[in-house]
Amino acid sequence: MFEFELKAKTGRARAGVFHTPHGDLETPVFAPVGTQATVKTLTPAQLDELGASLILSNTYHLYLRPGDELVRELGGLHEFMQWPRPLLTDSGGFQVFSLAQTRKIDDDGVTFKSHIDGSTHRFTPEKSIQIQENLGADILMAFDECSDPNDHAYSKIAMERTHRWAERCLTAKTRADQALFGIIQGGVNPDLRTESAQFIASLPFPGIAIGGLSVGETKDEMYSTLDLVNPLLPEKKPRYLMGVGTPEDLINGIARGVDIFDCVLPTRLARHNAAFSSEGRLNLMNAAFARDPRPIDETCKCYTCQTFTRAYLRHLIVAKEFLAGTLLSIHNLHALIQLVKNIRVSILNGTFESNVPGWLAQWKGNAERVKDGYQKISQKRINH
Amino acid sequence: MFEFELKAKTGRARAGVFHTPHGDLETPVFAPVGTQATVKTLTPAQLDELGASLILSNTYHLYLRPGDELVRELGGLHEFMQWPRPLLTDSGGFQVFSLAQTRKIDDDGVTFKSHIDGSTHRFTPEKSIQIQENLGADILMAFDECSDPNDHAYSKIAMERTHRWAERCLTAKTRADQALFGIIQGGVNPDLRTESAQFIASLPFPGIAIGGLSVGETKDEMYSTLDLVNPLLPEKKPRYLMGVGTPEDLINGIARGVDIFDCVLPTRLARHNAAFSSEGRLNLMNAAFARDPRPIDETCKCYTCQTFTRAYLRHLIVAKEFLAGTLLSIHNLHALIQLVKNIRVSILNGTFESNVPGWLAQWKGNAERVKDGYQKISQKRINH
Repeated sequence: MFEFELKAKTGRARAGVFHTPHGDLETPVFAPVGTQATVKTLTPAQLDELGASLILSNTYHLYLRPGDELVRELGGLHEFMQWPRPLLTDSGGFQVFSLAQTRKIDDDGVTFKSHIDGSTHRFTPEKSIQIQENLGADILMAFDECSDPNDHAYSKIAMERTHRWAERCLTAKTRADQALFGIIQGGVNPDLRTESAQFIASLPFPGIAIGGLSVGETKDEMYSTLDLVNPLLPEKKPRYLMGVGTPEDLINGIARGVDIFDCVLPTRLARHNAAFSSEGRLNLMNAAFARDPRPIDETCKCYTCQTFTRAYLRHLIVAKEFLAGTLLSIHNLHALIQLVKNIRVSILNGTFESNVPGWLAQWKGNAERVKDGYQKISQKRINH
Repeated sequence: MFEFELKAKTGRARAGVFHTPHGDLETPVFAPVGTQATVKTLTPAQLDELGASLILSNTYHLYLRPGDELVRELGGLHEFMQWPRPLLTDSGGFQVFSLAQTRKIDDDGVTFKSHIDGSTHRFTPEKSIQIQENLGADILMAFDECSDPNDHAYSKIAMERTHRWAERCLTAKTRADQALFGIIQGGVNPDLRTESAQFIASLPFPGIAIGGLSVGETKDEMYSTLDLVNPLLPEKKPRYLMGVGTPEDLINGIARGVDIFDCVLPTRLARHNAAFSSEGRLNLMNAAFARDPRPIDETCKCYTCQTFTRAYLRHLIVAKEFLAGTLLSIHNLHALIQLVKNIRVSILNGTFESNVPGWLAQWKGNAERVKDGYQKISQKRINH
C-alpha cells in the first residue's frame, strides 16, 4: 500500500502510479477541490465523466459541518460523498491560520473561532490527525503553519513549528490504510526551504508536500523554490504542490518534478463566469458572446463544449441560472485534468520537453494568478 | 404530423401517442418547466436520465431574455438549449397577466412592463404567435386571459376575449411544423366552462388545454371542472391541464381524461429543500435527518436515491451547496415523471382503476398545493 512507482522521467518531469486503498492514482494529477464534501455544483457522476481521480476535501470545514464524527458514523468521507476513488484531506492548518483576526497560535496548537457561528475551537497536530482519521481519506496532511513567504523571521518560526508538529502527527497517526504526507515550509527563503526539505525528507512520510506557495509570491519565486526543493527530495515519494494552480503553473510545476496539484481556481472561476480556453481566459458574461454559436473552446472534448454554445452559456449567466456554474465548472475542471493527463502521456512517450513550449503558448492567456497578497488570498480561501 | 393516437382507455383515463417533429410523445406525460430555456439546475443529460420527454419553456421570459430573434438565429429553442425531444412554449399570457401592477389589458392585447428592467412591451395574439414561431417549439399555446376563477363577471369577459384571441392565433400561425393548442377558460363557473369547451373544441386546434386552474381554487372545484369539460372535448385530440401539479392532482387529472401536465412544483420544492416521498413530503433541512443513512425514498430508482443518504443531502442544504438543489430536483422530477409513466403502463394493461387507491394513499402526504389565492400564486410564477 502507498507504494509510489515511477514509470518514466524526462528531465525532472515524472510519470508515476501511487497505490491507494481506493485505486491507483496516476501522476501527475490535478485534484478538484471539494471543500464541503462536494466539488461545487457537480455530481460524482459528472466528476467521473470529466476525468477526475483524486479529490481534496477540507478538514476545517468538515470538522465544523457536518462534523467528523458524523462522517465516520456514516461510513467515512468516500461513502458520505460517494466518491469511490482516492481522497485527500488537508490538515485544517491553512484555513485556521487564514482566520487572521480570530485565531491564536502557540507551540502546542491553534485556538480559533468558527467562521460559521463564532464558537471557539482548538486544533493541535493530534487533533488534526484524529479528525482526518474520522474522515478517512486515503491521503492525510500533517498539521503545519503557513507563513507570509517574504517574512524571513516569521517564516523561520513557522517552519520550526511545522517540523515539530510533523513529528507529532507521525506519532499520533494510527490507521494503516491512510498515507500521511509531510509538508515543507519556509516561504521564499532559500535557506529555510533547504532546511525544511531536508528535515521533512528525513522523516518516514510516504509522500511530501510543498506548502506555503501560491499565497502571493511571484511566479519566479515559486518556480525557483521548486527548483531548489525538489532535487532534495527522495525519488520514490510523490510530491504535492498545494493550492496550485493555473495551466501555466501546472506545466511548469510538472517540469520541476511535481506529481500532485489541487486548486479551487477552476470552480471559483466558473462561479465568476470565467472559462479557460486556448484563446485565453474568457468572461462569458461579455456581450460579445451574446450571439456566438461556437463552444467555449473548439478543441475541447468536455460535455459543455460538445453540447452548448457561448451564446447559451452567456444567456444562463445573464439570467442568473445555476446551470451556468455547473457547465463552466465541468469545462474548467476538464481543461486542467486533461492537460495534466496529456502531459502524463507525453512523459511516458518521451515527447514532454518538445511539447512544453506549445502548451505554454496555448494556455498563455490563462496564466495570471490572483495577486492580492498573502492575507487577502487566505481570506478568500476560507470563504471558498 | 401531430396526429394523436389513442392506444388505450379505462374509464376516462387515456394512454396515447402524440406525433411531433421531435419524436413521439407518450401520454399521459408530465413536463418539467424550463422557464428560461433551462430546467433549473439540471443538464439535458440529467433530464434525459431521469426520464423527461416534453419540456415547457416560457415565452414571456425568453422574449425578454435572450430574445426570441436571438434564439431563432441560433437555430431555435431545441438547438439553443440542446433538448432533442418535444418542447412546448406557453403564450406569455399567464405571465403577463400576473404582472398585476404593471399591465394594461385591452381587446387587442396587453401592454406591460418588463420585470427585469421596467421597459414597456406589448403582446397581442399575433405577437405571441410570432415569438413562439421564432422560438420554434413543437407545441404552441394560444394567447389567452386567465381570470380569478371565482369572479364570474371577470371570468366571462376574459373567456370571451380568449375566444376571440384563439381565432386570431389560428389565423396568425404560419409554420406547419408546430401544433397550436387552444385554451379553455371560464374559471370555476360551469356555464362559462361549458361554453368555452364547446367553442374551443369547434376550432381546428390539434390539441386543447384547460387553463385557469391551479390558481387558488379548491381541489373539488378543479376536479369538477375537469369532470365537466373533458366529456365535451373530442377524443382524438390531446388534453393539457396547465400548471398542474401535485402527485394527487396528476392521478386525479389522468382519471378525468387529461393527457399532458406541467408544473414548476418539483424544481421549486427542490430549491426549498423539500422532496416528494412515500412517507409524505420531507423537508431535508430537518435536524432529524442529520444522521439518517436512508435515501429520500427507499422505493425510488433516481440517481439521488440510488446514490446519496438523507444525511448527506441535509449536509449540502445546511452548508448552502448548490448540489442540494440539483439532487432534489432530480428526485422530485423523477418521482412525478415515473408516477405518470407507471400510470400509463397501468392504463395500457387495464390495471389503472384498481391501482388508483394505492397510488393516492402512497402520495397522500404530498398532496397540498400552495393555497395563497390567485394573485399571490401568479406573482410567484412570474418570479420562478
